[in-house]
Amino acid sequence: MTTSEALEQLAELQRTMHAYNHASGVIYYDAVTGAPEGGAQGRGETLELLSGVSFSLFANPQVGELLSYLKAHGEEIPPQKRREAEILSREYDNISRIPKAEYAAFNRLINDAGAVWHKAKRENDFASFAPLLEQIVGTLIRFAGYYDKDCDPYDFCLDEYEKGLSKATLDRFFSALREKLVPLLRKVKAAPQIDDSFLHKTYPIAKQREFSDFIMELMGIDRNDCSIGETEHPFTTNFNKHDVRITTKYVENQVASSLYSVVHEGGHALYELHTGDELAGTCLATGTSMSIHESQSRLFENLIGRSEAFTDRLFERLVSLFPEQLAGVTARDFYRAVNRCEPSLIRTEADELTYSLHIMVRYDIEKQLFSGEIGVADLPRVWNEKMEEYLGITAPNDTAGVLQDSHWSGGSFGYFPSYAIGSAYAAQIMAAMKRELDVDGLVREGNLSPITGWLTERIYRYGKAKDPEELLLIATGEPFNPDYYTDYLTEKFTALYGLK
Amino acid sequence: MTTSEALEQLAELQRTMHAYNHASGVIYYDAVTGAPEGGAQGRGETLELLSGVSFSLFANPQVGELLSYLKAHGEEIPPQKRREAEILSREYDNISRIPKAEYAAFNRLINDAGAVWHKAKRENDFASFAPLLEQIVGTLIRFAGYYDKDCDPYDFCLDEYEKGLSKATLDRFFSALREKLVPLLRKVKAAPQIDDSFLHKTYPIAKQREFSDFIMELMGIDRNDCSIGETEHPFTTNFNKHDVRITTKYVENQVASSLYSVVHEGGHALYELHTGDELAGTCLATGTSMSIHESQSRLFENLIGRSEAFTDRLFERLVSLFPEQLAGVTARDFYRAVNRCEPSLIRTEADELTYSLHIMVRYDIEKQLFSGEIGVADLPRVWNEKMEEYLGITAPNDTAGVLQDSHWSGGSFGYFPSYAIGSAYAAQIMAAMKRELDVDGLVREGNLSPITGWLTERIYRYGKAKDPEELLLIATGEPFNPDYYTDYLTEKFTALYGLK
Repeated sequence: MTTSEALEQLAELQRTMHAYNHASGVIYYDAVTGAPEGGAQGRGETLELLSGVSFSLFANPQVGELLSYLKAHGEEIPPQKRREAEILSREYDNISRIPKAEYAAFNRLINDAGAVWHKAKRENDFASFAPLLEQIVGTLIRFAGYYDKDCDPYDFCLDEYEKGLSKATLDRFFSALREKLVPLLRKVKAAPQIDDSFLHKTYPIAKQREFSDFIMELMGIDRNDCSIGETEHPFTTNFNKHDVRITTKYVENQVASSLYSVVHEGGHALYELHTGDELAGTCLATGTSMSIHESQSRLFENLIGRSEAFTDRLFERLVSLFPEQLAGVTARDFYRAVNRCEPSLIRTEADELTYSLHIMVRYDIEKQLFSGEIGVADLPRVWNEKMEEYLGITAPNDTAGVLQDSHWSGGSFGYFPSYAIGSAYAAQIMAAMKRELDVDGLVREGNLSPITGWLTERIYRYGKAKDPEELLLIATGEPFNPDYYTDYLTEKFTALYGLK
Repeated sequence: MTTSEALEQLAELQRTMHAYNHASGVIYYDAVTGAPEGGAQGRGETLELLSGVSFSLFANPQVGELLSYLKAHGEEIPPQKRREAEILSREYDNISRIPKAEYAAFNRLINDAGAVWHKAKRENDFASFAPLLEQIVGTLIRFAGYYDKDCDPYDFCLDEYEKGLSKATLDRFFSALREKLVPLLRKVKAAPQIDDSFLHKTYPIAKQREFSDFIMELMGIDRNDCSIGETEHPFTTNFNKHDVRITTKYVENQVASSLYSVVHEGGHALYELHTGDELAGTCLATGTSMSIHESQSRLFENLIGRSEAFTDRLFERLVSLFPEQLAGVTARDFYRAVNRCEPSLIRTEADELTYSLHIMVRYDIEKQLFSGEIGVADLPRVWNEKMEEYLGITAPNDTAGVLQDSHWSGGSFGYFPSYAIGSAYAAQIMAAMKRELDVDGLVREGNLSPITGWLTERIYRYGKAKDPEELLLIATGEPFNPDYYTDYLTEKFTALYGLK
């Protein structure tokens, strides 16, 4: 094999893997944005077959040889190609140890589990979902063992979403947050509460859709390359940088819900829409990790989206769309209302301050589930205990409790911590940006392009070409420092609630 | 190879082909129901790669050997398996002669052409679409030559959609229609025109969507297995009998447009929702031909949907949704309005009587294009000449003329005639049904299940297990006879317009 033959094979491999991922991705997107329920079984069969084929194409010795060859000849090939091979090697080492039939069966399992979970949530029936969840956890533990029979299976899961992340790091991170945020939350709860009742009047969905269009425009998201779908649990997906999909959910008496889901998913979308053109068609043409991705969505959702400069701009348009609902409400009232802090049941609707506590509930459960300290049957009970411990509230049923999130049904264990880490990255990135740009001033002008320009230059364009650690250093000039996050929250909520 | 090994391979082959078709089908469905426009190129690359893979899997000598083996051992295998092998053999004989790269490139070409056509139609720019159309026609002619270098390429295209159909048959069929329908239309045009202005008032789309739900329920379509999407050019697609998608388009001042597109597409859906369970997962689990499929959609759209029994039932609900728009309108007015006959520019909005004339315009053009009598550049001119000749009107621009339909951009030449043949089948099938069922009485009661039951028994359940000719014989007890169609139209429009 010559180097140029190897590079041609590398490109062909990525084109092929991309096509299968693209197909499965569209089938998934369709499944949750409008497909009839009856299609679940047939869809599962198709996804199983396709994932089996793409698994065989990737996890085969020829690919192993190609990747070894490229590693051995690293100095003869361009840096980007070397990086592509490196990323693929990581994945190859993970995946090639899993027997093909087990991999395909797992994909089918999570497809089935998605349908069962949907129904279980609707009918508050954890018991019907439990056997599938047990199979999912069992499979993930078994898969971790295929990688390294001595590894800690939960550390393995964490590392999959954020290279190098482990329980040791997270235990330290979360205990730091707990130390700063719990006393802060205690003070907030003792202060007079903010009135947000006007956000829960009736806001017709057709007008909310118009408002989403306004937000997309304000954020500078090109609708030619990014659509908005509607689904139960909003998410963003991307097939290439010219085909990104955000989703939202409209609730008539919760105008802030879809508003902030659009800003959040819009943040994810901006990242994917601005990866470097030179990365197109390669495994590098996407965000580098879950946490960095979440840092981008939360930077828009919270650091920008819940700043007074941004809420003032939103409010102007909101009043013109909903004059009756907002009669007598000021821009200041609106800013305070969307920042109201109150322990609540549903993670996706949690405020900025209590959000991390929701993550800690899930983190503790996942850790214990993977260590065998608790079993799936214990989940509803442990869920309630942890909610009581961290947030001081208990869900009235599993629908609003342990069944609320789709992640576990999709096999995503170790994913939740990335939301909290992402929020902390976001605060550090925003502090760096503010050293160079008048962020609030730009937002007040409705001129977000210098902001997305800065993010493109420092983060977006790199795609997966840099690991999170290096990227954060490039963007902010220093290693990860969670103080930015706790300082930001302390300052913001102290002012908002007039604390001492 | 033993017979049972061959049967296992036959099943595996069909499962695999189905998965690739399913994936491509969802990607296509997504493309026209909400995907951002920027995704066209990446989607084209993915579809090209997937179609290349599925082509290689199917058009390879091993499949040829398997199908030959099954043919040779036909008496040892169950009739259904024999039929599966027969259908696959027809496709194999067609497809295995096309070089893989050309097949994949054609799939990419039609994906690109779809995007170009959309833009060309929007901007009334036939010239931008012409080069792609030329490539499509050239490719189809070349492909026909691969099958049989002496065959007539247009006859080859016709046969692909309806086994055995040829120009000779169609020339006879259309001249019979011309002979009966042209004089009938002349009389209609001379009679006082029906007032349908109330159908063009403002009908808010949210309420039209509610009306679609009512129609689906009235037709007995299980929403668990069939969704309604929205698109520019309504169509139906199916991934299996529990995952069928109809689409419609809502226009505020054309309430009858989405109404009848839902009834039409619903007819397609009912067919796919009721193929026999024993056919599931095989190539037989779908409608047998384009014309039979159109017979089912048009039977619902026109024979049932535009009958007075059905329009009376619709009207009752329509009045409750749109009391202002329909103030002073009677059920009889509504029946007459949705049956109003008037030559118009857009095929999909043509009335029942002039519809076949639109098909004749396209048939004449396709025939001449494939024989080389005219070139792509002549299309706008020839289109206008034919419209003038058959319908007595001329399109003011290509958007409303030669660019109106998506079919050619998708490579579907030889498809249009199936609409006309399908209408004729529908009339013959309805005549047979009325010999056994009180169709109007059942419709008046809103009890359509004996009707779909009859169709399931005589048509739906067979899927592709029978060819169109045999199926029509089973359903109606006689071979194809277009007199039912011309008699039905003559009787209906004579009464409606009070003709002599």
